[in-house]
Amino acid sequence: MTRSSWIRKMFEEGIRMKADGKGPVWDFSLGSPILEPPAKVVDRLKHLAGGSVPGIHRYMPNPGYDSTRKAVADFISSETGIKIPSGNVIMTVGAAGGLNSVFKAILDPGDEVIILEPFFGEYPFYIDNHGGVAVPVRSKEDFQIDLEAVEALINSRTRAVLVNSPNNPSGVIYSRQSLENLAVLLRSKGRESGSEIYIISDEAYRKIIYRKPDCPGSLAVYENTIMVTSHSKDLGLAGERIGWVAVNPSTPDAGRLIDAIVFSLRALGYVNAPSIFQKTIEECLDVSVDIGWYKKRRDLLCEALADFGYEFIKPDGAFYLFPKAPGGDDLEFCRVMASRRVLVVPGRGFGMPGYFRIAYCVGDGIIEGALPEFKAAI
Amino acid sequence: MTRSSWIRKMFEEGIRMKADGKGPVWDFSLGSPILEPPAKVVDRLKHLAGGSVPGIHRYMPNPGYDSTRKAVADFISSETGIKIPSGNVIMTVGAAGGLNSVFKAILDPGDEVIILEPFFGEYPFYIDNHGGVAVPVRSKEDFQIDLEAVEALINSRTRAVLVNSPNNPSGVIYSRQSLENLAVLLRSKGRESGSEIYIISDEAYRKIIYRKPDCPGSLAVYENTIMVTSHSKDLGLAGERIGWVAVNPSTPDAGRLIDAIVFSLRALGYVNAPSIFQKTIEECLDVSVDIGWYKKRRDLLCEALADFGYEFIKPDGAFYLFPKAPGGDDLEFCRVMASRRVLVVPGRGFGMPGYFRIAYCVGDGIIEGALPEFKAAI
Repeated sequence: MTRSSWIRKMFEEGIRMKADGKGPVWDFSLGSPILEPPAKVVDRLKHLAGGSVPGIHRYMPNPGYDSTRKAVADFISSETGIKIPSGNVIMTVGAAGGLNSVFKAILDPGDEVIILEPFFGEYPFYIDNHGGVAVPVRSKEDFQIDLEAVEALINSRTRAVLVNSPNNPSGVIYSRQSLENLAVLLRSKGRESGSEIYIISDEAYRKIIYRKPDCPGSLAVYENTIMVTSHSKDLGLAGERIGWVAVNPSTPDAGRLIDAIVFSLRALGYVNAPSIFQKTIEECLDVSVDIGWYKKRRDLLCEALADFGYEFIKPDGAFYLFPKAPGGDDLEFCRVMASRRVLVVPGRGFGMPGYFRIAYCVGDGIIEGALPEFKAAI
Repeated sequence: MTRSSWIRKMFEEGIRMKADGKGPVWDFSLGSPILEPPAKVVDRLKHLAGGSVPGIHRYMPNPGYDSTRKAVADFISSETGIKIPSGNVIMTVGAAGGLNSVFKAILDPGDEVIILEPFFGEYPFYIDNHGGVAVPVRSKEDFQIDLEAVEALINSRTRAVLVNSPNNPSGVIYSRQSLENLAVLLRSKGRESGSEIYIISDEAYRKIIYRKPDCPGSLAVYENTIMVTSHSKDLGLAGERIGWVAVNPSTPDAGRLIDAIVFSLRALGYVNAPSIFQKTIEECLDVSVDIGWYKKRRDLLCEALADFGYEFIKPDGAFYLFPKAPGGDDLEFCRVMASRRVLVVPGRGFGMPGYFRIAYCVGDGIIEGALPEFKAAI
């Protein structure tokens, strides 16, 4: 608990501040997708909720409805060019539930998972839950993968590299070159150790992108890829906990791996992904919230902060900006900002002290209201 | 995986058999509540799903909406006579998610949890997930708690006794006498070891009862009780994964225990209970599915099976019957029944070889259809 989430700490600090009656709070702490689900999602959900679909709220097989798994498999096959059978898709309780099920499936005590800095601060907990050890590795200045640094950390206990693209908190999309080089390295190291080193590809932000990526993701470039995602962001369903896992059929012993993930999701007490949302997303894989809405915020924030003198890599996806903390001390900078009633999260929460995260998935006027404070603080 | 669930095995066997075209399958394998949610639940869900409640699908604080926690706290306070503050209620991803969050919160590696035979077959996994050791203890012939047997197994590593009432698979409701005696024992043993031994009270079937219990449950008789339940059965929402945990405010250091459970539900990747179902059950705690529907099935089954010569304790709650396996070999008996296209689950899946479980939450005509097979098999 003492290592617990900086994000949640700031979010809860925000709830306290908002109640103190001392004026507005400019809250950039939580990556809470603020947009309502697309109309198609609402219509579909309303239809399913109306009592006209018998059995919609019952248990189904642990990995999910066959029809949902098939819809997801077809969707991801067409997106990646890799033919995914529906049996390789497992519906999960969000991406967080999917990651935990995958880690339980593949980790023995002491096994290592490499995570790329900066990383989502919950990853080390997800790995630790199942006896694994999170091994953070630095990235290049532009937040792309530092292959030599990764290579230096691989050993016989390395079971996976966790790749989050678009990245929370940096907003970076890993390039085809980065992913292909990583694939070559992991193939070679896997052969040496005699077992697969997986890429676990957390793509929770896959549709929140501001340019077309040069590659459809790890699934398309590396056979030992387990893709994990959710509809929290692209369909605005964060509180509903609906996501899925897709296993590349070319990974050796894929059937046994899938069985282990399904067993894990049951044994961990997820049991199944929420039923009505499986059936909802089944027909809504082709829609998303308005990405332009997020892009406007990115552009507004980036332009102003660059103008004030903040240093950062302009994000290509997700809804975060991860600048260097002026003065170098991220905790001190976040304290200064909080005293100005602006909530941002220290970079050490993502394995990178000296930076801070701005979650710009915020309502109209919040960025504009906070800009004078950012200007004054630097 | 090899120790995996007999229930799910039979359920999946049933799916295969139903597709083989060789006639009806009488499937009593899965405790899947077949009744649709009450009209009030459907109305409420439909209203919330309609797009008229802004932000309904977003993240909220990990333990749930304040309003939902308050509604649950008020409800359980009035049911048990114990004043539960809303901060002591944590909304969870079903009871299974609640149990896992509780076990992660209270267990250190090697800590022991006593489970009462017969027990839900997933319990040992839930305990093992977090480094704990499940210690099964026999019960009395009538499935009430064998206090001497429990006492003999308590040692300095015992952190909790898991009490499931009404019980899956026996249908027994533990008597006030049983629970009060257990409370006295745990208080005394807790004093000896210098730390609390919790009762974790899994009350997933609390509203599926056929007589008024003589006691509102463990929360009312023992201060170190953590109650866990879900709305899978009473509101027919099994696939939607909505449940909650309530901590007795009289347990020492309750605030820290609650913080640990909330941290655990986040770290395990549940994040929060599905949002729309929190808001749905908030106003539906006073309703339930038609218990009479289940009672009719219990009575039909009990009368016929007693008539055929099966031996069992007549269940007071839940929707299971747990008879002795004719011939004594539960695996063999279940095989014989499967050859007659009747699916029941071997008692060894619940820690009691020599018995078998019939889940009688089944549609019209299923019991009637299967009775000749039960008669012939004995």
